Amino acid sequence: MATYLEQLETPVPIVDLDRLAFNLDRMAAYATLHGLRLRPHVKTHKSPRIAAEQLRLGAGGLTCATLREAEVMAEVCDDLLVAYPPVGAARLERLARLPSTVKVGVAADDGDAMPALAVAAKLSRRVFDVYVEADMGMHRVGLATPEKAVALARQVSDLSSLNFAGLLFYPGHIREPMTEQSQPLAVLSAQLARYLEALDDAGLPAKIVSGGSTPAAWRFHEVHGVTEVRPGTYVYNDRTTANIGACDWDDCALTVLATVVSVAVKGQAVVDAGAKALGREPLRAEGDGYGALLDRPDVVVSRMSEEHGILDLSKTAWRPRLGDQVRIVPNHVCIVVHLFDEIVGVRGHAVETRWPVAARGRGPAYDLAPEGPSRPRAV
Amino acid sequence: MATYLEQLETPVPIVDLDRLAFNLDRMAAYATLHGLRLRPHVKTHKSPRIAAEQLRLGAGGLTCATLREAEVMAEVCDDLLVAYPPVGAARLERLARLPSTVKVGVAADDGDAMPALAVAAKLSRRVFDVYVEADMGMHRVGLATPEKAVALARQVSDLSSLNFAGLLFYPGHIREPMTEQSQPLAVLSAQLARYLEALDDAGLPAKIVSGGSTPAAWRFHEVHGVTEVRPGTYVYNDRTTANIGACDWDDCALTVLATVVSVAVKGQAVVDAGAKALGREPLRAEGDGYGALLDRPDVVVSRMSEEHGILDLSKTAWRPRLGDQVRIVPNHVCIVVHLFDEIVGVRGHAVETRWPVAARGRGPAYDLAPEGPSRPRAV
Repeated sequence: MATYLEQLETPVPIVDLDRLAFNLDRMAAYATLHGLRLRPHVKTHKSPRIAAEQLRLGAGGLTCATLREAEVMAEVCDDLLVAYPPVGAARLERLARLPSTVKVGVAADDGDAMPALAVAAKLSRRVFDVYVEADMGMHRVGLATPEKAVALARQVSDLSSLNFAGLLFYPGHIREPMTEQSQPLAVLSAQLARYLEALDDAGLPAKIVSGGSTPAAWRFHEVHGVTEVRPGTYVYNDRTTANIGACDWDDCALTVLATVVSVAVKGQAVVDAGAKALGREPLRAEGDGYGALLDRPDVVVSRMSEEHGILDLSKTAWRPRLGDQVRIVPNHVCIVVHLFDEIVGVRGHAVETRWPVAARGRGPAYDLAPEGPSRPRAV
Repeated sequence: MATYLEQLETPVPIVDLDRLAFNLDRMAAYATLHGLRLRPHVKTHKSPRIAAEQLRLGAGGLTCATLREAEVMAEVCDDLLVAYPPVGAARLERLARLPSTVKVGVAADDGDAMPALAVAAKLSRRVFDVYVEADMGMHRVGLATPEKAVALARQVSDLSSLNFAGLLFYPGHIREPMTEQSQPLAVLSAQLARYLEALDDAGLPAKIVSGGSTPAAWRFHEVHGVTEVRPGTYVYNDRTTANIGACDWDDCALTVLATVVSVAVKGQAVVDAGAKALGREPLRAEGDGYGALLDRPDVVVSRMSEEHGILDLSKTAWRPRLGDQVRIVPNHVCIVVHLFDEIVGVRGHAVETRWPVAARGRGPAYDLAPEGPSRPRAV
């Protein structure tokens, strides 16, 4: 017997499977068209099922942030980039214990971390690819000058268990509407050229130049020298992606299904999706609130408690009734996925499938301690 | 062999067991001293282990928000208040399926939800206690006038499977330093008096008057008529609780242990606790950032990505090294607990115990579907 949306318990993240398929196809096609290697970031979906589909559509490897993600993704992929500083004994141990069939890459911005990383690579009987990370203006991690990047590349080259694979950056500060003339991308191109020239001059050419993110993804072919992109959000998209123009509203594949649980206070309706279901992420674009209704984007979640979301009804004549269901497009979908254990896949109003957010959490996916909470799940 | 903080993989939430014990004792003593029934909200800890300790120290029942919380807490408690609107078939079914030994209470603010709630109570072969919820100024849920509260209380009284148990409110809007003269509490007392008088006049006296929250908890004996308090955060406390003066900084029992993973960008250090470990909760008090270091409260997490937290070093001469560990007091601890599967209990620098966040998640704790992700865990 089929299950329909109306029968689902809320709050629950639901994914429109047709939209997901379209989003996966679209990015794969973009990368193919422009000869860019697509190495999607799995932080958004944390699901081997979706990663496998990305690979089937031509992705050349995956990007991870946590070791949990890498361990789970090793089930479906043998080329993993951990785009996160390899610092801390536990992180290095888990890196070394990744299945021997996996080609391991890491991003790095500090020479002090290289000796221990080299030891971890040796213990795992393989060579780790090291991507030297540059700061192109986001000011989060990464080296600030071409000279520093060259020095780190040289240090890496001198260690036998490490291979200088290329240059990596994350342009998270670039979030502009796709329709406008791209001044920030021109600036980025010029910055990048200085790094690449310095590496060339030092006899350490960057074979891979890895950039990309969903907001800027569709224009990365304009950034000269880039060979690889690492978008994550594009699989589901969200309100920020749509509002900056990097996808259409109808490309938002993941919504949080919620139920109206109170209409007692005038001018608002309360749904059962609060900060523990939506996260408290700002909209990184024009607009306010923590999410908007899929079918009524003018109705936003204006306030939240842990388990309550307040729909502001001041700009609409619509008056929901107690028990009505709504679908909320979250501001930042990667946070929403991290808040749930399971995703429900729907086709129209019918529930078609469910899958675990298998790479959620922190614990090791293998060698589970007896009391550990993070038993690996069937995918 | 003992394990020490330094050996833990980060990010991880760690609880100072001595501080936890002090916090539990302090609230229990306050309630006893003032003859208030303590019905702690489990949303903060989501752990039957801590709930059992609260009960051992004299708590008269527990408060839950989600049905998952109620199901897990039923293992240790037979008197549960679900302080959440009983709306939606799935929520009602799970309410009805709570073990028959459990006395079930629910908060309500809408008569339209009562017929279905009465049916659920009948199906579960028991009488549900209904607490009529009033809005005392937070404007989230709750009835805005004494007349509406009386009408709902009467409707409840007329249904044989429901019992009008009393009046409930959540004073989440009251967050004031404990040391100042409490104007908001005086206003609250006056508001409450009008509700209680109206119920008395209608021949429907509120036997229980349930209020309370951690920020205002220590002064609830000043609010005339209140018989029960429902604080949650006090078990762990957090930066907001400390900064409004409802606890001392040294009463913050839960911190997120994190590792410095990058010092490449000037004036800052990056730790591996970002929005997926700390949440993006505002400080509801004076100050900025998303958390502060336990040992250096002047160093705050000023920016975050999903897995990166940026420590602002502009106001300190302290310069951490790559690989250093820090302990972060989060702005809002209830959100942090919801982000992890497991809590580590420490005594000084030694790891003493670990426990699962057993009531995390959404799925049923019993009658697990074959593919369900939320298998109940040993406590």
